[in-house]
Amino acid sequence: MTVSETERAALRRALDAARRGPRGVNPQVGAVILSPAGDVIAEGWHRGAGTPHAEVDALSQLQPGQARGATAVVTLEPCNHTGRTGPCSQALIDAGVARVVYALSDPNPRAAGGAERLRTAGVDVDGPAEIGGAEQDAAASLLRDWVAVQRLHRPYVTVKWAQSLDGRAAAADGTSKWITGAEARADVGRRRAQADAILVGTGTVLADDPALTARDADGELLPDQPVPVVVGTRDVPADAQVRRHPHPLLQLGGGLPAVLEDLRERGIQRVFVEGGPTLATAFLREGLADEVLVYIAPKLIGRGADGHDYNVVGDIGVRTMSDVRPLRTTSVERLGDDLLIVAEAQAATEKTEENH
Amino acid sequence: MTVSETERAALRRALDAARRGPRGVNPQVGAVILSPAGDVIAEGWHRGAGTPHAEVDALSQLQPGQARGATAVVTLEPCNHTGRTGPCSQALIDAGVARVVYALSDPNPRAAGGAERLRTAGVDVDGPAEIGGAEQDAAASLLRDWVAVQRLHRPYVTVKWAQSLDGRAAAADGTSKWITGAEARADVGRRRAQADAILVGTGTVLADDPALTARDADGELLPDQPVPVVVGTRDVPADAQVRRHPHPLLQLGGGLPAVLEDLRERGIQRVFVEGGPTLATAFLREGLADEVLVYIAPKLIGRGADGHDYNVVGDIGVRTMSDVRPLRTTSVERLGDDLLIVAEAQAATEKTEENH
Repeated sequence: MTVSETERAALRRALDAARRGPRGVNPQVGAVILSPAGDVIAEGWHRGAGTPHAEVDALSQLQPGQARGATAVVTLEPCNHTGRTGPCSQALIDAGVARVVYALSDPNPRAAGGAERLRTAGVDVDGPAEIGGAEQDAAASLLRDWVAVQRLHRPYVTVKWAQSLDGRAAAADGTSKWITGAEARADVGRRRAQADAILVGTGTVLADDPALTARDADGELLPDQPVPVVVGTRDVPADAQVRRHPHPLLQLGGGLPAVLEDLRERGIQRVFVEGGPTLATAFLREGLADEVLVYIAPKLIGRGADGHDYNVVGDIGVRTMSDVRPLRTTSVERLGDDLLIVAEAQAATEKTEENH
Repeated sequence: MTVSETERAALRRALDAARRGPRGVNPQVGAVILSPAGDVIAEGWHRGAGTPHAEVDALSQLQPGQARGATAVVTLEPCNHTGRTGPCSQALIDAGVARVVYALSDPNPRAAGGAERLRTAGVDVDGPAEIGGAEQDAAASLLRDWVAVQRLHRPYVTVKWAQSLDGRAAAADGTSKWITGAEARADVGRRRAQADAILVGTGTVLADDPALTARDADGELLPDQPVPVVVGTRDVPADAQVRRHPHPLLQLGGGLPAVLEDLRERGIQRVFVEGGPTLATAFLREGLADEVLVYIAPKLIGRGADGHDYNVVGDIGVRTMSDVRPLRTTSVERLGDDLLIVAEAQAATEKTEENH
């Protein structure tokens, strides 16, 4: 059967409900129950680890027997996994739900299989292929980062830097303000706000004293602020700007895989690495950069006569041209006089998957 | 008086005539003489240094008195300069020409003033401002490089390189084939054909043995081939590919200003510097690069673990950020997976002019 307009409207409402839940280790999920006549009789959403899943939350609002013959519209495939709660697919079956519409398949192998369990029990099920369109896109977009975490077993990592055309981050005397112009810097502010955490090395904190806040073009704080994370064991000065960030500072050491595992456990889905050539190089070398954002200014800096050379990228383990893993350019954008290249490190991502 | 359609048609014909002359030290110029009734009664063009200018060439085809009351349509302002030939402006006056239409002002201070001399003698004169449109653009385009030589007192220099996103020309072991893809390399071939000479350093000849030919995407030689120039004093091997170029190899030493002066005297108006990081860096450091063409591949190479680091640009004399002269980006183009950034080194050009 095809997905009706009433069901699409219910899915949009379920997506709104899902957004009320927290971004974190668990996915943001919403559910709406429609009576056989097509009226909304319940809605629910997931409020975070240890609380009922969205479907169960919605069913809990109904009288016994009230869901019989009903349609459940859910943003994510009902789980087939018995954890702190029983499988949602079984809860829907037990409640007598006749039809389930879900927008996104569960990428987690431990939780997947709910649709199959429902079908086996005789429930009519429509999934992403039957939905399509704007509603399916919205559901995919809402859980994009959470899905990436399931795939990568760590947060999705964007490494950002600004450089001259010839790949330098600073002049021979270490001056770097400003390589790029105001439009490029405002773009960085907007993109920071889309990340859950922003990472810098201790070297950058000591050298540049960054605030690590996401601000708009007028310098005002944006509503969403990433958690500031300093990677490294050197002390962060008591008067460092990053200590006045809206979120408490997190300082982590012990190697990048351990840092990312720590962040994943805290529910961080997307990290933005800004922290200077050393940290960027480490992420690239270890195959832990999923995306690079390179802001290129139409300037040439070159090497210093004194041998000082501020390359944006150091040793990333490439010995010969055939070692080089091409990136996939996803966009090229002019920002004032500067250029932004966004590219995905496809091979690095695949390598990470193989390691798991 | 406005420029008539008959005069525009004559100007297009004069441009065709101009193109029959050689690119060289002197400009390519064409002239058409129209009778008072608007019929073409003569055309002429300049065949190179030491030969008559276009106007004189056209007038020489007429009987004495035949140019009286005629209109001369010329692609460049008639000269006011007595060199190996007398001033063309005076020749037109002496022939009794009543009106002169010219498409481009003479940028050479020694030769300029012809329009003024004509007006003073009572000749009706229309110049670039009155012409405008496609004919004026075509005339400017034909002499673009020659005009640049007059302004710079040397050939116009384009420095081209291919690099990874992080500004490397090769991997740690020196391998560099291929950083960019087939579309970018075909683009280089087309652009080589637009230059009069292509410059490389001896280091590049010894390391890469380039052919320095302009070829199309199928590897076929293009009709226009730049003169191959090797800069440096080391011997070019007898079996080097560059010795089999359609044009004889030119090897020049003695510093870049001397090299460019030599090329200017040979009538080279536009040079394409391809010759490896050392030569590119020298042109940039000496402020002798008017334009850079940077082909950027979506790849990261980094520094070698052994310290080998093939940066595209070495020491260009920048010590601190305020030393950096921004380039002006003229175009950004995607070529397959690669990106081509064309930018003008505006400040470097101005500096060169100040030095003269």
